[in-house]
Amino acid sequence: MLRTHTCGELTINDINKTVTLSGWAQISRNLGGMTFIDLRDRYGITQLAFNLDWDKNLCDQARAVGREFVLQATGEVIERQSKNKNNPTGDIEIKVTILTVLNESITPPFVIEDNTDVSDEIKLKYRYLDLRRNTVRKNLELRHRMAIETRNYLDKLNFLEVETPVLIKSTPEGARDFVVPSRMNQGQFYALPQSPQTFKQLLMVAGFDRYYQIVKCFRDEDLRADRQPEFTQIDCEMSFVEQKDILETFEGLVRHLFKAVKNIDMPHVPHMTYADAMNFYGNDKPDTRFDMKFVAITDIAKGKGFPVFDGAESVIGICAKGAAEYTRKQLDELTDFVKRPQIGATGLIYARHNSDGTIKSSVDKFYNEDDLKQWSKAFNSEPGDLILILAGATEKTQKALSELRLEMGSRLGLRDKDTFSALWVVDFPLLEWNDGDPNLLASLAGRWHAKHHPFTSPKPEDMALLKTDPGAVRANAYDLVINGVEVGGGSIRIHDKSIQAQMFDLLGFTNDEAQKQFGFLMNAFEFGAPPHGGLAFGFDRLCSLFGGSDSIRDFIAFPKNNSGRDMMIDSPSEISEEQLKELSILSTVK
Amino acid sequence: MLRTHTCGELTINDINKTVTLSGWAQISRNLGGMTFIDLRDRYGITQLAFNLDWDKNLCDQARAVGREFVLQATGEVIERQSKNKNNPTGDIEIKVTILTVLNESITPPFVIEDNTDVSDEIKLKYRYLDLRRNTVRKNLELRHRMAIETRNYLDKLNFLEVETPVLIKSTPEGARDFVVPSRMNQGQFYALPQSPQTFKQLLMVAGFDRYYQIVKCFRDEDLRADRQPEFTQIDCEMSFVEQKDILETFEGLVRHLFKAVKNIDMPHVPHMTYADAMNFYGNDKPDTRFDMKFVAITDIAKGKGFPVFDGAESVIGICAKGAAEYTRKQLDELTDFVKRPQIGATGLIYARHNSDGTIKSSVDKFYNEDDLKQWSKAFNSEPGDLILILAGATEKTQKALSELRLEMGSRLGLRDKDTFSALWVVDFPLLEWNDGDPNLLASLAGRWHAKHHPFTSPKPEDMALLKTDPGAVRANAYDLVINGVEVGGGSIRIHDKSIQAQMFDLLGFTNDEAQKQFGFLMNAFEFGAPPHGGLAFGFDRLCSLFGGSDSIRDFIAFPKNNSGRDMMIDSPSEISEEQLKELSILSTVK
Repeated sequence: MLRTHTCGELTINDINKTVTLSGWAQISRNLGGMTFIDLRDRYGITQLAFNLDWDKNLCDQARAVGREFVLQATGEVIERQSKNKNNPTGDIEIKVTILTVLNESITPPFVIEDNTDVSDEIKLKYRYLDLRRNTVRKNLELRHRMAIETRNYLDKLNFLEVETPVLIKSTPEGARDFVVPSRMNQGQFYALPQSPQTFKQLLMVAGFDRYYQIVKCFRDEDLRADRQPEFTQIDCEMSFVEQKDILETFEGLVRHLFKAVKNIDMPHVPHMTYADAMNFYGNDKPDTRFDMKFVAITDIAKGKGFPVFDGAESVIGICAKGAAEYTRKQLDELTDFVKRPQIGATGLIYARHNSDGTIKSSVDKFYNEDDLKQWSKAFNSEPGDLILILAGATEKTQKALSELRLEMGSRLGLRDKDTFSALWVVDFPLLEWNDGDPNLLASLAGRWHAKHHPFTSPKPEDMALLKTDPGAVRANAYDLVINGVEVGGGSIRIHDKSIQAQMFDLLGFTNDEAQKQFGFLMNAFEFGAPPHGGLAFGFDRLCSLFGGSDSIRDFIAFPKNNSGRDMMIDSPSEISEEQLKELSILSTVK
Repeated sequence: MLRTHTCGELTINDINKTVTLSGWAQISRNLGGMTFIDLRDRYGITQLAFNLDWDKNLCDQARAVGREFVLQATGEVIERQSKNKNNPTGDIEIKVTILTVLNESITPPFVIEDNTDVSDEIKLKYRYLDLRRNTVRKNLELRHRMAIETRNYLDKLNFLEVETPVLIKSTPEGARDFVVPSRMNQGQFYALPQSPQTFKQLLMVAGFDRYYQIVKCFRDEDLRADRQPEFTQIDCEMSFVEQKDILETFEGLVRHLFKAVKNIDMPHVPHMTYADAMNFYGNDKPDTRFDMKFVAITDIAKGKGFPVFDGAESVIGICAKGAAEYTRKQLDELTDFVKRPQIGATGLIYARHNSDGTIKSSVDKFYNEDDLKQWSKAFNSEPGDLILILAGATEKTQKALSELRLEMGSRLGLRDKDTFSALWVVDFPLLEWNDGDPNLLASLAGRWHAKHHPFTSPKPEDMALLKTDPGAVRANAYDLVINGVEVGGGSIRIHDKSIQAQMFDLLGFTNDEAQKQFGFLMNAFEFGAPPHGGLAFGFDRLCSLFGGSDSIRDFIAFPKNNSGRDMMIDSPSEISEEQLKELSILSTVK
């Protein structure tokens, strides 16, 4: 080893030891006859000391060291005169006797410190320098710890980690696949998995009983800030279980992770139906760190001559505790917020429940004191509260109000990143109508689309609706939501071949198409498929949640940008004619 | 849960308990009034008992159960009359009171038993049934255990598991890449990694210090029985180390795995230079479970009038202990063996060291008793031994003799799969001449090619030879060989930009090409790259070695066949015109 110790471990107990450290020059300071270099490695920072009186040559050598030079220093551990209580090694320094420059460095494009205001583009291009920053490295250390703890928890419960293939088959019913031309099978393509869904179900047919895998998945979709073309799942499946068994098992995993990684005792996770989540929060992933549930006042608000409410399908609102003192300017900001195109409300009605008990609304012209008291009762408002109301078509209004609720939660400081509130959302709809989702192939528009995926089991009590009212069928499907973030989801699967065939039919597959794409699964179901179900966690997102960040990119070592490019290696890139020819493809781009 | 217990855990201590089991009907037997069903799950087999006298309906129901039906059975644990000592649950059976068929099964194409003589093709097509067999499932359980133990060992040594990207950049200097057309970046392609080599080096530049990953890698090469287009590596890298530190660390890993997984105390692993491995075994991955080293008798064999030896560059042989009694037929078989085209020797010379002390050779015409005594002395032969000799061009003869040595090892029972002998082979050549390797692009023929990869550091003492005799330069590169199988390999890397540039130049890259493909790495080396090195284990192969099998396929859940096809899902397959168009490519196959 080119060191005897790391830069993070020497303390007052090591005084007089001769040690060798290796690392990067964080900073050097010349103070008259003394020169100090902060030597940094993954484990910490240790101060190297040089003195003109001790050794002039060595001191000169130290003064020539630039930022980010790679150094090896041998010397004696001595007690510091001015100690640094903020650094675990701050009581000591190294009186250097041998200094070796292992490698030089040109000046980096940004300083390697916790806070740096350089652009994301530069940080992605020089990701290997960005990763030198403590804050970024700690994110990846957290990720490592999360993975280890996940595996050890599941291993104890007899789950087997099984690697499923990455080169699989394109099944274009879902989001777009990345495909891989085959050289050995000309004119044919592999696809990269969007998830190991069918393989984990086959492992259940194979009797593997309990499977998991921390696995890369791929989706060729238009990217948003929190999406990446390749992402990682904790993918799990169990046999001979009912929904409650799966929820209990994986609630256990999440509680274990909170305890082991963050030393947080997570309370039992409540369940809420999808219908309730939409009614109370207008959102299938409600942030339950704060209450502020929706209240529908459609009945009491209508018929008083206010045309906006009279013409609305729904009149719904929230009660923001303690916000009655909001200024006109703040209320205008909220109105502007809900009127933004991506939210799309036409206006915002409010009522202040003043500290003197009176209630004043922005529509006093139409509603008298008694009317407003009825509102107050409906919202359970108290003096000091602010009632905010939207009206219009139900679904659209719920969505807009959900955004307003989250905004108010943020403004009122109710969304602390170190507070965690988890929720199981259950009984999702089985299907949704595809009006032309840009993340699906255009040829799939105007069809029913599986909300979770085509292997999700309908609720037995809703089976009859499959023929008459498919949109009303509920699934044995569930999501785990923490702080308004969907961190995982899954379902009980269909294990009966005829129901699976019925499902493919409903999704617009001909028998031939279903057989061609999923014949292997339906055939497998002929040979004794056990009842089974499972779920998958978005591992990048789970890590970012634990790390208190909104961005999954911060928790991926080498992320891609919003155009799917790796800025560091400059990929994707052109390939040679020789390669294209061997793969029997032509590029249509000149 | 649809069970209270698994099929592997009930014993005499559970008598009188009411239990529910779920699993597959392995076999059912009707014995007069009794019917027995062996119920199987991943954990074991438990006998279900039915009796016409107890419940006729239930008994009839049991008799209708076919092989591989999925059953749930509730009943009382009772002591068996005729116990089965070979089964951990063999002391008890379940007196069933409720039997539910959870799913039926048609007759499987082969019986789910440890030994089955069905073709590989059928087994791959119905892999989900093949995986139900104990022997196959145990292989994957072993793999799971190996992965868990690897991670826990490395975690304790401060290694961080970091996921590197799967969608990277094509760098056609190595084996062929699989490529992925980009929809968002038209005309451009990602490539799948042949290994995370450059990324792990960048993690060292980033100061991550100790990295590992159990990771899928991809190589588009013509497949042999023990190759797969996607395979798994335990990939590792360390900073501030010298070669011996890496060898010690990963010898530790292998010893840990042997102890934890197989309860074998592995002795210290010896080192051997590549030159010695070639001289003594004609093979850079010698099987050291047995000795039988090569002996060169070129000097003493020449000049006696035997034209084959006189015209040969090298005359080398092995001494097979105790094989002097080999019959003429056996010797003819060995001669045929070495004359096979894939071995290519022109003939085989032998000398028996008879039990009476006399020595008789197949070339007695040219060599007298004294000559043969000299041979015997060179080979250190004893009465009862058989000396086998090949002659010709040195390298070719070494290779042929290596095959003969392995054949003799097998014939003499010296290659027991439960005996393990490990060896570090060190000081590999840096380069090899590419005469037209079919696994490389044709345009790369007639050039030097990196034997390990282009990032491997030459030995400092050989640097001067880079300009004068590149083929003679040795690398700081090493392989771990166990039982003649290369299970891992690695090197100390170049961390100096100018040496890296020199290396690319030697490999025939123009400056432009090097910059285009590896500019990111060479740029990173400008910013303080630490001395570093690492290695990668072939995880599939390591598992198959631990499992006592020659085939990595047996240790992969869903392997592909020799044409790179997944027979189960029938992939690769054609994709739609809509997909091709979105990806801006055309298939040249009609």
